[in-house]
Amino acid sequence: MKASRLLHLRCLLQTRSQCRGNSILAQEPSGPKMKTEIPGPKSQQFMKELEKTQNPLSTIFVLDVDKSIGNYAVDTDGNIMLDVYEQIASLPLGYNHPAIQKVFQDSNNLSQLVNRPALGVHPTPQFIKQIDQTLLPIAPKGLECVQPMMCGSCSNENAFKAICIWYANKNRSGKSFNEEELTSSMYNKAPGCPTVSLMSFEGGFHGRTFGALACTHSKPIHKLDIPSFDWPIAPFPRYKYPLEENQRENQKDDERCLARIEELFHEYKKKSNPVVGVVVEPIQSEGGDFHGSPTFFQRLQKLTKQNNAALLIDEVQTGLGATGKFWAHEHFNLPESPDVVTFSKKFQTGGYFAKSEYQPKQPYRIFNTWMGEPAKLLVLDAILKTVKQENLIENTRKTGDVLLNGLKDLNKKYSQLILNPRGRGTFCAFDMPNASVRDKFLVHMRNAGIQMGSCGDVAIRFRPALIFTEKHANIVLDKMTEVAKKF
Amino acid sequence: MKASRLLHLRCLLQTRSQCRGNSILAQEPSGPKMKTEIPGPKSQQFMKELEKTQNPLSTIFVLDVDKSIGNYAVDTDGNIMLDVYEQIASLPLGYNHPAIQKVFQDSNNLSQLVNRPALGVHPTPQFIKQIDQTLLPIAPKGLECVQPMMCGSCSNENAFKAICIWYANKNRSGKSFNEEELTSSMYNKAPGCPTVSLMSFEGGFHGRTFGALACTHSKPIHKLDIPSFDWPIAPFPRYKYPLEENQRENQKDDERCLARIEELFHEYKKKSNPVVGVVVEPIQSEGGDFHGSPTFFQRLQKLTKQNNAALLIDEVQTGLGATGKFWAHEHFNLPESPDVVTFSKKFQTGGYFAKSEYQPKQPYRIFNTWMGEPAKLLVLDAILKTVKQENLIENTRKTGDVLLNGLKDLNKKYSQLILNPRGRGTFCAFDMPNASVRDKFLVHMRNAGIQMGSCGDVAIRFRPALIFTEKHANIVLDKMTEVAKKF
Repeated sequence: MKASRLLHLRCLLQTRSQCRGNSILAQEPSGPKMKTEIPGPKSQQFMKELEKTQNPLSTIFVLDVDKSIGNYAVDTDGNIMLDVYEQIASLPLGYNHPAIQKVFQDSNNLSQLVNRPALGVHPTPQFIKQIDQTLLPIAPKGLECVQPMMCGSCSNENAFKAICIWYANKNRSGKSFNEEELTSSMYNKAPGCPTVSLMSFEGGFHGRTFGALACTHSKPIHKLDIPSFDWPIAPFPRYKYPLEENQRENQKDDERCLARIEELFHEYKKKSNPVVGVVVEPIQSEGGDFHGSPTFFQRLQKLTKQNNAALLIDEVQTGLGATGKFWAHEHFNLPESPDVVTFSKKFQTGGYFAKSEYQPKQPYRIFNTWMGEPAKLLVLDAILKTVKQENLIENTRKTGDVLLNGLKDLNKKYSQLILNPRGRGTFCAFDMPNASVRDKFLVHMRNAGIQMGSCGDVAIRFRPALIFTEKHANIVLDKMTEVAKKF
Repeated sequence: MKASRLLHLRCLLQTRSQCRGNSILAQEPSGPKMKTEIPGPKSQQFMKELEKTQNPLSTIFVLDVDKSIGNYAVDTDGNIMLDVYEQIASLPLGYNHPAIQKVFQDSNNLSQLVNRPALGVHPTPQFIKQIDQTLLPIAPKGLECVQPMMCGSCSNENAFKAICIWYANKNRSGKSFNEEELTSSMYNKAPGCPTVSLMSFEGGFHGRTFGALACTHSKPIHKLDIPSFDWPIAPFPRYKYPLEENQRENQKDDERCLARIEELFHEYKKKSNPVVGVVVEPIQSEGGDFHGSPTFFQRLQKLTKQNNAALLIDEVQTGLGATGKFWAHEHFNLPESPDVVTFSKKFQTGGYFAKSEYQPKQPYRIFNTWMGEPAKLLVLDAILKTVKQENLIENTRKTGDVLLNGLKDLNKKYSQLILNPRGRGTFCAFDMPNASVRDKFLVHMRNAGIQMGSCGDVAIRFRPALIFTEKHANIVLDKMTEVAKKF
């Protein structure tokens, strides 16, 4: 009898919460097991009900959170799917991980779970400890300040505000607000509400509230009918793969983008709408999993600095280990830290890290009722401890190699179907010939028991949990081979 | 021995979680008890630590969530304060209420607490049930759709988007997007991202992200240095008190505001920036607790309709019973429901209710990773059941009478200090002669054991929990008398 099976049996004899560490894998089924097509009849019935109050067109299936475990999502029809999308890249430890269960079962945590404080006016000792012991240890080097928030979108919005305030403060040279600024601000007018801009990228995604949406350019459906800002939008590299065979051309593409970025800085300065910050993902995710080279990012940082703007790296989707490093921007060997780094999703809480000069000197400028949530930081702490104890970033690096090599093999075998395999860690993707093939492939994979995500026009992305191992990667690759044969 | 004291003793013999219902009051101390000034030395020490990573200037004291109970907040120095501000109006049942504790102690809830799903793609049966059994029963009449969100600000932002989409959809007369719209939207330009506006009010507050902030006009410090939209800003009534002695003048003020609102509709239509929606609080809260008459709101609704715009009532601070009705706008006897109603704070989750025509026909237009949180709806369900079982809205109505009459008496006694007492339910406020007196009064009250909130330039607001009773109101009124004597 295998060790893992023994461990599994031992776990069955204990309560789920007593199972520790890697045992979550021992609780998993041996592979996907499908009873119906997706969505099954029970999912469809629930979706009909949902239709009364919500638009159900984005619903894929109805989730059974009680039965889902580890890397496996179970739906209300009893279909067991290997989930490499993990609730839009937001579950770092898969489903029902004992480390997170323990947070809610520990009676010492009860009053923190029950009483959500307004942290801006009444922080708690536990929260202050969480800042120090949970958040600061993961801060990108040189970013001494951290502000928890509720979600990715409001993390970006508030980080944008911190950048606008930092910029105005520099120009004010320490002077206080003048009367004209105070009065005009109340009517949305300059100089109180100045005309300044944030530069973002074609294909970028930073959220869907008005400020974040003005920096989002992945798909028209997100933006149609919503008023926006006149902010500069630069091209982001579109590399040819395999990288090693297209170095010269890809370098040229870096040059093209950087030249346009430089132009945009000047154009917007000339039209009195100066760029105060540049907002960029380390890997454009929602837009189609597009990568920029370390050189591109190093030069982007240099350009941004030369133009007196701030560099914000949005790690909402890339942060917390999936790329094989804790922060994806660590892959770029930047000469210094970005100025602001935003996070959310796997962290369970939104927020941003920033250099101390990005902290407004006055109160109530970066503020809201909740300013984050201690309960979410309890969960994050459990996640970070598990990631460390179980070497999950190392695991992601190793599993990522298996996955990417497998995708490269599939690319060789099915060179008209599986295109441009790319990735860092398990944060991998590939393209398909067009959107209709891609969408059909996704449906086939799902019905074969693999839940994947799409992105951009023609890409499929992998966003598994950090407990996704070589064994799981091989199941996915085998199923992809089976499905590819049918195309 | 009094019954309440007996109950208190009985509770001491049980575990806290076994105490049910009104027994939360029996667990409370008999009144405030102060050991130090606020902030005490321990709070100050914690605040120094917080200073390393955050701006601590808005911190009032550091909260001991373990010791706080019912209407009483306890700080880390052991000061026991009667809290009539309740974490910026966000705790409906005070601290450590057994009904909320039970949510986290019930092992049936564990997998819902542990696995936060991406509800837009993978709703759960429990969530679908929560929509039906928790949210829909509290929907304002005629609003059939509900969309949970994360916080008040993003609830408003998404409601604004729903309104913009509704407006564009009407103008498009059911046609699909054209090529020019699709292309221009990706560059933040019209016609894809059209020039349309939301009307808001001087003194209004709707949040701090870019869209919400463009409708916020309560204080310059919220808005300074942040770019904004050219959106119309109308005056909101500024009544003279007592209302019954100033009817004619206050009616004139309604006329003044309504005339300007009508003008603004025309001005913005003329400059091709049509108003698609009007965004208004039923009681302007952050801006200074300013009220509008039922007639004002009825005529505002009529004007909005005549101008083909949507009426959004922001009940983030007023919703869930504090005004003596579940929704504050129920006081206005509007001929029909507002088109959209947003909520957050006491609800523990953000969100909005809307007429079904405000639900976009396409997926991914109102969307984000989480789309709310089932765990928060579990808490909301427990809150709503408690509010019903214990008749807490009726309690708030009765207690509000005692509180407002007491404030009116104080106004008579200290007519140069306690000005313009006003309110609905316990959602009460009064003005002071100027900001410096107001700020000083707040400090004195706090050091006397009453934690209150300020708003606007010169106001003090009451935002107690719904378990705030006549007994608590009298403690506050007595302390106010003591403190007023010193001024």
